[in-house]
Amino acid sequence: MSLDGYIAGPDDDISFLSMVEKEGEDYGYADFMKTVDTIFLGRKTYDKIKETGFEYPREKEVYIISHSTSFGDNALKYYSGPLKILISNLRNRQGGNIFCDGGSDVLNQLLQDNLVDEFFISVIPVILGDGIRLFKAGRPALNLQLVSAKEFDTGLVQLHYIRAESQQQAGN
Amino acid sequence: MSLDGYIAGPDDDISFLSMVEKEGEDYGYADFMKTVDTIFLGRKTYDKIKETGFEYPREKEVYIISHSTSFGDNALKYYSGPLKILISNLRNRQGGNIFCDGGSDVLNQLLQDNLVDEFFISVIPVILGDGIRLFKAGRPALNLQLVSAKEFDTGLVQLHYIRAESQQQAGN
Repeated sequence: MSLDGYIAGPDDDISFLSMVEKEGEDYGYADFMKTVDTIFLGRKTYDKIKETGFEYPREKEVYIISHSTSFGDNALKYYSGPLKILISNLRNRQGGNIFCDGGSDVLNQLLQDNLVDEFFISVIPVILGDGIRLFKAGRPALNLQLVSAKEFDTGLVQLHYIRAESQQQAGN
Repeated sequence: MSLDGYIAGPDDDISFLSMVEKEGEDYGYADFMKTVDTIFLGRKTYDKIKETGFEYPREKEVYIISHSTSFGDNALKYYSGPLKILISNLRNRQGGNIFCDGGSDVLNQLLQDNLVDEFFISVIPVILGDGIRLFKAGRPALNLQLVSAKEFDTGLVQLHYIRAESQQQAGN
C-alpha cells in the first residue's frame, strides 16, 4: 500500500507499484509462496493479474471471491458464500495456509470476521492522495504483534505482523 | 497512526497509544524537538494535549491552527488564514523548522499545498477499524524517499521519509 493506505490510485491505477520494481528483488515473494496452499483473490485483483499475464504456481488452489460466476477460466475456483465457511473447510485439510493477495473487499470481509492470522504489508514510498484503500472503515479493532519491519533499498518497507496472542487464542 | 491509518479510534479515542508507552523510551522525541522552532497544532490535538497536562518547551513558538480564536491561553498563538502564507513568513526567519504535531486537518491542509518536506510516521501495532484517519482522501499525490524504518521492541515502527528530490526542487 502507499503510505496513506491506498492499494490503487484514482481510476484503479496501480502504476505506482513500478517505482519499487527492481531486477532480482522479489521482496521475499518466492519464499513466501512456498508456504502457501490456497490463494484468495478479489475479482478486481484477478482482472489486474490477468492483464499482466502473471500466473500462480500450478499446485496452488486459487479461489476468486466474487458474486459473479462468469469467469470462463476452468483452472480457477470461484466462491461467493461466507468466507468463514470456506476457511473452516480449508483449515480442516492438511496444509491450509491461505494467502489473500491484494483485494481490499476480500481482506475487509476477512477482518470483519477476525479471520486473518498474519499480515505482510508492503509500504511503498508515495502518498497517492486518493483511490482504493486497503483498510475500509467500519471494521472491528484488532491488536497486532510486530514480527519485523524490513527496509529495502528501493524505499519499500515490509511490515510483518501476527494477531496478538490473547486474541489468537480467543479467535480459535 | 494505527496500521490501518487512524490517529484516533471511534469517539476520538487515543487510548491505543498507551500500548507503546514504555518508561525511558521516547522514540527519539526529545532529540527531534531540539531541531524544532515552531509547532503547528490543530484545535482537537491542542485540546487532547491540554487534557494530559503536557507542555511544549517554552522556547518553541506554538500555533493553534483554527478558525476559532477563543482559547484564552495567552502563551499560544492562533492562526486561521492560509497556511501557505504563515509558512512563507516563518521560512524567511532564521531557524524556521516547523513541526506539525498530530492533527489530521492541519496535515491535510499542508499536503493540499505540498508544504510538507519531511514525514515521521509512527505505526502502532493495532488495527483500529474506524475513527479519524491521518490521511484524508482527495489530496494530491506525492513521491517520497525513505530515510529509515526503525523497529522498537514495543512493536512501534517509525517510518521516516522526505519528499522525493525532484519534487523538492519543483516545490521550492
